Amino acid sequence: MRVGIFGLGTVGQGLLQILRERQPAIEAVAVVDRSYARKAELLAGIKASDDKNLILKDKSIDTVVELMGGIDDALYVVRSAIENGKNVVTANKALLAEHGYALFQFASEHGRTIAFEAAIAGAIPIVRNIETIFRHERITRLMGIVNGTTNYILTRMRKDHLSYGEVLEAAQKQGLAEADPTLDVGGYDAQQKLALLTSLITGEWVEAKNIPVRGITEISAQDVVWAERFHNRIRLVAEYNLIQGQHYMHVTPALVGEQNVLYDIEYENNALLFHGEYSAEHLFMGKGAGKFPTAFSVYSDLIQLQLAAASPVPVRKIETYLPIANIADTTSAFYLRLRVKDQPGVLAAIAQILGNNALSIASVHQDHSAVAAGEVDIVIHTHAQKRSGFYKALKEIHALKSIVLHHVYLPVLG
Amino acid sequence: MRVGIFGLGTVGQGLLQILRERQPAIEAVAVVDRSYARKAELLAGIKASDDKNLILKDKSIDTVVELMGGIDDALYVVRSAIENGKNVVTANKALLAEHGYALFQFASEHGRTIAFEAAIAGAIPIVRNIETIFRHERITRLMGIVNGTTNYILTRMRKDHLSYGEVLEAAQKQGLAEADPTLDVGGYDAQQKLALLTSLITGEWVEAKNIPVRGITEISAQDVVWAERFHNRIRLVAEYNLIQGQHYMHVTPALVGEQNVLYDIEYENNALLFHGEYSAEHLFMGKGAGKFPTAFSVYSDLIQLQLAAASPVPVRKIETYLPIANIADTTSAFYLRLRVKDQPGVLAAIAQILGNNALSIASVHQDHSAVAAGEVDIVIHTHAQKRSGFYKALKEIHALKSIVLHHVYLPVLG
Ligand SMILES: NC(=O)c1ccc[n+]([C@@H]2O[C@H](COP(=O)([O-])OP(=O)(O)OC[C@H]3O[C@@H](n4cnc5c(N)ncnc54)[C@H](OP(=O)(O)O)[C@@H]3O)[C@@H](O)[C@H]2O)c1
Ligand SMILES: NC(=O)c1ccc[n+]([C@@H]2O[C@H](COP(=O)([O-])OP(=O)(O)OC[C@H]3O[C@@H](n4cnc5c(N)ncnc54)[C@H](OP(=O)(O)O)[C@@H]3O)[C@@H](O)[C@H]2O)c1
Repeated sequence: MRVGIFGLGTVGQGLLQILRERQPAIEAVAVVDRSYARKAELLAGIKASDDKNLILKDKSIDTVVELMGGIDDALYVVRSAIENGKNVVTANKALLAEHGYALFQFASEHGRTIAFEAAIAGAIPIVRNIETIFRHERITRLMGIVNGTTNYILTRMRKDHLSYGEVLEAAQKQGLAEADPTLDVGGYDAQQKLALLTSLITGEWVEAKNIPVRGITEISAQDVVWAERFHNRIRLVAEYNLIQGQHYMHVTPALVGEQNVLYDIEYENNALLFHGEYSAEHLFMGKGAGKFPTAFSVYSDLIQLQLAAASPVPVRKIETYLPIANIADTTSAFYLRLRVKDQPGVLAAIAQILGNNALSIASVHQDHSAVAAGEVDIVIHTHAQKRSGFYKALKEIHALKSIVLHHVYLPVLG
Repeated sequence: MRVGIFGLGTVGQGLLQILRERQPAIEAVAVVDRSYARKAELLAGIKASDDKNLILKDKSIDTVVELMGGIDDALYVVRSAIENGKNVVTANKALLAEHGYALFQFASEHGRTIAFEAAIAGAIPIVRNIETIFRHERITRLMGIVNGTTNYILTRMRKDHLSYGEVLEAAQKQGLAEADPTLDVGGYDAQQKLALLTSLITGEWVEAKNIPVRGITEISAQDVVWAERFHNRIRLVAEYNLIQGQHYMHVTPALVGEQNVLYDIEYENNALLFHGEYSAEHLFMGKGAGKFPTAFSVYSDLIQLQLAAASPVPVRKIETYLPIANIADTTSAFYLRLRVKDQPGVLAAIAQILGNNALSIASVHQDHSAVAAGEVDIVIHTHAQKRSGFYKALKEIHALKSIVLHHVYLPVLG
């Protein structure tokens, strides 16, 4: 197997090292990188260029690894590689979430494979497991922590009693969060990964942008403390449910109780909890990112391509788009924190709205301590009920402009 | 694919149902079971007998599934199937642990495969993952809960404040423990699974009987309470470590701290935590047993065999025995509970022995409450040190016959 690598950054360098140390039968033949000139030492004799044709036009190269990131150039590289008869391995979830439908079609028309183990949950071999071992299992539920940056932020907020802003800044300094963190903290990276996962599970294409998403930006130190008081932790979860033939999914921050294994997934770890009709509960946990863990997944894709070289694994053809059902039609318990003016009648007004909407309350707590004078936090836990009913009540509560300053709500995972 | 099934018990019945519901391309053609006559309804027309030749001599059957359990008959069935040119799928860890070396040789001489996903940790696809995705990874550590019965007992002792004997009896009544529970509670089932796992990891054969083993029979309600007091839980762990080229392994009850993901693996769940040189920490968790979870693993072996039918996956040849290093040469922190006579000088005598053996103590606690008059429990936590030193001190303490009544010790997992 002769490999050409696009992008000699964090993951590319990890891959080069693994290939050198492990697999003489898989040879890195050429590297394309826009700053290849600065990387002579790493290349150690492997031919390199900033000209993509160095790899694309080299007929001796049968496999292209795309590790540049970004969309436009990556799209060009993947398409051209396939056109030139090469298989592709990529870690680029953004590319796949945006252009995967067309790319997978294109690859299957050309009889080529696009492998992407590293694009979802780093070192966790979830793609290969879903595609092989669980190919004939019916996965009816999936709940995952698939974004390391947000899990790191939520973990440090809790452990070090810091605000969201403080941890974000620290994470940016350590290189654990991007300068523009929107993709991660807005939940969009998790949304892209959930789209890919659910496409694999269902065999139909899921458009990332159609998946409801909420990020963690509105989570405050108070919510973290309230969660702990009730033996919960806050996690950004990507969730999929198959209920009576309908596919529900969303990305949302949520309260996770002690009994749930996701409770213990801390810092930048990733985890996928799923339920198979016959095989019941499974948890896969591992490193969601990092030089070698991510490079290892790229490497394991290369190994599988090599093994399959004689008789290619049938590429899963995705030919239809999956209809996504309305998550508001499903049920959940909720945590709701309202910051309100500390004046008579507030709680009564809120309770009335909840009552009018037939929302059943599990507990109500008030806390003056953490907030400014003249304000108070009210924390309400509801029993499980249809989300749409909760959203409606929330809207009405929020309309109590004279007394409600703002609110934060989180579903509670069962 | 035409399949013959030996043994229509719990797992066999689960498999039959999955095959009926899922895979027309994999057909159950015949069943051999000593009480087949009682099972006409389940068979629903599939030909059946108590005569093994019904399957073994049927040339149209290409794959044999062995789900009878036991050793002698199972050995005969597996050997005969291979001799007759059939591939074999089995869930029988006892058979493989005892005769695996010869059987795998025999199969590879005949160009046939013995698949055994269901033999280790039920529904968790650990065998296939080690053999494919992690085939080129160096696994340097493995820590597993691989016996559901003992984990169930330890969980219920803690949650329901029951003694070992009380829970065992209840588990036997519920069918969660055998009438003769020795294989499970003595740690031997875990020992067999660890032997198979480490054989897969190293590619050399590990003799189960050479793996040091301790069971859970001496764990008492007091130890469970003491563990909780220090935010630990007791687990029966199967452990493997690769240290400077030496292979260490054992099965032992151990204290597991809150930080360790095994802390949360409760009841009959199984889990495998392992570390790959490049890919870092992984956890696989799932059902360790049960009709459908186990049958699903058998089924997934069948699917993989079917996929590989065109180009058989190269059978991993095991041609050497793995030398197992002495676990006593590795280090561990320890929990030690001594029941002693409540008389002056006892603690001094014990402390002196520990000091003489250069054992560094983390804490000492005394508790009169839980024991008979004139006796006291002393609980000592040591820092990590060579196990051999601890064992030596333990022997000397135990020789203090006049004052020490008995002791329980557990390594503490890092
Ligand atoms: N890092 C992780 O832990 C991780 C985990 C999972 C997935 N991924 C994915 O893996 C991919 C690579 O990530 P990374 O962390 O290795 O990124 P990186 O460190 O930024 O490396 C990217 C490399 O590609 C080069 N490059 C970027 N655009 C290029 C272009 N248009 N033409 C030529 N060269 C170009 C960059 O050059 P410069 O040095 O000049 O910028 C850099 O050397 C991304 O898709 C990412 O989402 C990464
Ligand atoms: N159950 C689990 O959750 C689980 C999990 C992992 C692995 N396994 C393994 O799977 C295998 C089967 O387990 P199981 O729970 O299904 O056992 P089981 O319920 O006892 O079923 C065994 C079946 O085989 C029949 N049988 C036993 N010996 C026979 C012989 N010599 N000739 C013909 N028929 C024979 C039995 O007949 P009778 O009905 O007359 O006894 C019974 O129908 C065992 O190796 C076990 O270790 C089981």
